Amino acid sequence: MTSKLNVVPFVNVDNMMKLVLSIGVERFLVELAGYIEDDFKRWELFDKTPRVASHSTEGVIELMPTSDGAVYGFKYVNGHPKNTRDGRQTVTAFGVLADVGTGYPLLLTEMTILTALRTAATSAVAAKYLAPKEARTMAIIGNGAQSEFQALAFKALLGVDRLRLHDIDRSASLRCARNLAGFEFDIEICSSVEESMEGAEIVTTVTADKQYATILTDNLVGAGIHINAVGGDCPGKTELHADILKRSAIFVEYPPQTRIEGEIQQLAPDHPVTELWQVMTGQAIGRRDARQITLFDSVGFAIEDFSALRYVMAQLERTKLYDELDLLADPDEPRDLFGMLLRAQAAQTAA
Amino acid sequence: MTSKLNVVPFVNVDNMMKLVLSIGVERFLVELAGYIEDDFKRWELFDKTPRVASHSTEGVIELMPTSDGAVYGFKYVNGHPKNTRDGRQTVTAFGVLADVGTGYPLLLTEMTILTALRTAATSAVAAKYLAPKEARTMAIIGNGAQSEFQALAFKALLGVDRLRLHDIDRSASLRCARNLAGFEFDIEICSSVEESMEGAEIVTTVTADKQYATILTDNLVGAGIHINAVGGDCPGKTELHADILKRSAIFVEYPPQTRIEGEIQQLAPDHPVTELWQVMTGQAIGRRDARQITLFDSVGFAIEDFSALRYVMAQLERTKLYDELDLLADPDEPRDLFGMLLRAQAAQTAA
Repeated sequence: MTSKLNVVPFVNVDNMMKLVLSIGVERFLVELAGYIEDDFKRWELFDKTPRVASHSTEGVIELMPTSDGAVYGFKYVNGHPKNTRDGRQTVTAFGVLADVGTGYPLLLTEMTILTALRTAATSAVAAKYLAPKEARTMAIIGNGAQSEFQALAFKALLGVDRLRLHDIDRSASLRCARNLAGFEFDIEICSSVEESMEGAEIVTTVTADKQYATILTDNLVGAGIHINAVGGDCPGKTELHADILKRSAIFVEYPPQTRIEGEIQQLAPDHPVTELWQVMTGQAIGRRDARQITLFDSVGFAIEDFSALRYVMAQLERTKLYDELDLLADPDEPRDLFGMLLRAQAAQTAA
Repeated sequence: MTSKLNVVPFVNVDNMMKLVLSIGVERFLVELAGYIEDDFKRWELFDKTPRVASHSTEGVIELMPTSDGAVYGFKYVNGHPKNTRDGRQTVTAFGVLADVGTGYPLLLTEMTILTALRTAATSAVAAKYLAPKEARTMAIIGNGAQSEFQALAFKALLGVDRLRLHDIDRSASLRCARNLAGFEFDIEICSSVEESMEGAEIVTTVTADKQYATILTDNLVGAGIHINAVGGDCPGKTELHADILKRSAIFVEYPPQTRIEGEIQQLAPDHPVTELWQVMTGQAIGRRDARQITLFDSVGFAIEDFSALRYVMAQLERTKLYDELDLLADPDEPRDLFGMLLRAQAAQTAA
């Protein structure tokens, strides 16, 4: 795209919105899900490490790197539930893709919006393999910033078109319903978790409190349901009662990370789980029968961000929706970094 | 500086050069060294972790995070020795400072130039505590991109004004001498390592090959010298013969990282080393006497980058040498990320 060695393409928030809108949210989710599925299918190739988290009393800041040997990607992401009190986002993120051969960054992009999309796309990809066949009704418990993206991903990938929304803050459910008004869902707003579970074949839990919580109790979970547990994603933060976990077939992204951060932090460290990528490659079985409870214990893994970065990168040449950032020092003679400073000074003096 | 929640100040390469030149390289190095020394003196406060490295056959990409509990910083840096063959830098870097309380980034900056400055400032700070008193003569072995910065840091902080330059590529030494012509050094270009060591009270080794090398052999190192070993900084890359290490009092930044990456990877994992911060706080002794050989086994630690990020951040308000980057999604209602997309769409349609 550019041959200038100092320049890195940068997708700001405005351009990310334009990109999503120009492609269309649902098509974006479907295409992004394709990238995620492709990368999960070549899972063994990746350099994998649990994310590097810096915890504080207020929240967490994480770096999530991975590489497929040719391209390297990482995401910076925070999680601060109290942020909404003063008008900030709970989660913000940005990410970088780089060339493994030179170490030079290829792309810098906002990832707050992109993370919402990739999280939803990953949930829907998992559900494609795990949810009951022909499921059309999903309960969404927790109707914050992630809820509409989950709804649209499940609609676009699985045909889910009946939503049962519940949030302890009813205005959040109302806003979610309003935002989804143009997308042909049949939406019911429910005043309790119990009510939201009536007739649901899939339940997505996506609440935000940073604490052990029991959003879903055992008695509410009937046979055959698929649980898409998105909100429990750091140590000390869970959403499901442990009894549910014990009745479920549990699928995870990357066990070393999920055992620390996921719902399964409540279980013994050797409790059996299945890795999602193995289901996708056919090395493991997904849903066994119509009565089985399946659980995708999602915490978000670096490879999903890598897929999202790859997908955005692939759109740049066509859409031109990026700026050029003067990020990398590019002296005329590569070993002469100091000379670059001297010449800049000479140019200043001459001017 | 800005109250817009979506905006992160960004210091590009051009503004970094302007910043360095407006302050002056030597004053920049002295002030930056002050920040580094301050942070080393409150070492125990920091959240420390060895850098997260992704190695390939061509090089390495690293993330270096740390936090003092109030501010979080990380650097992205690569090391690709072969890059110079096609006009790229061996090392490029950028970094981010963020607020621990909200997780929001406060600064994004180029760090290729800044890393060169902080590496040199750290070397000089260490030498202030370890080099022989009143040392004025330094050998610099390896005259690549880092060499002039080392020279100026040692001049500004210690008064070193006699340089003995050696590089296997003589044109590198010539360029280094030319670049330093205006800085009142007495410079000798030497055709061998042995020659460069004549009369040197300090020796800086800063070569770039990614392999075990023996730049400096035992017979060349006389009593009382301070060795500033900068180039050996990743597994499999060293510059000094192990016998030198065994005769030296060894000082390091962060032992868990240095034992993997530094010269001491050649020694037993329990070989005694002293942490530099303890010398600065008076908890450990630096140089004991005039005949002791001291060795600063420098690999570069995240706290030095943190100090550099803090220093640059502190200059922004006064100098205005930054751009405003639209990096963070900032919906009017924080939980309504999807609504932000919808409103952008409505605005597009209306326009």
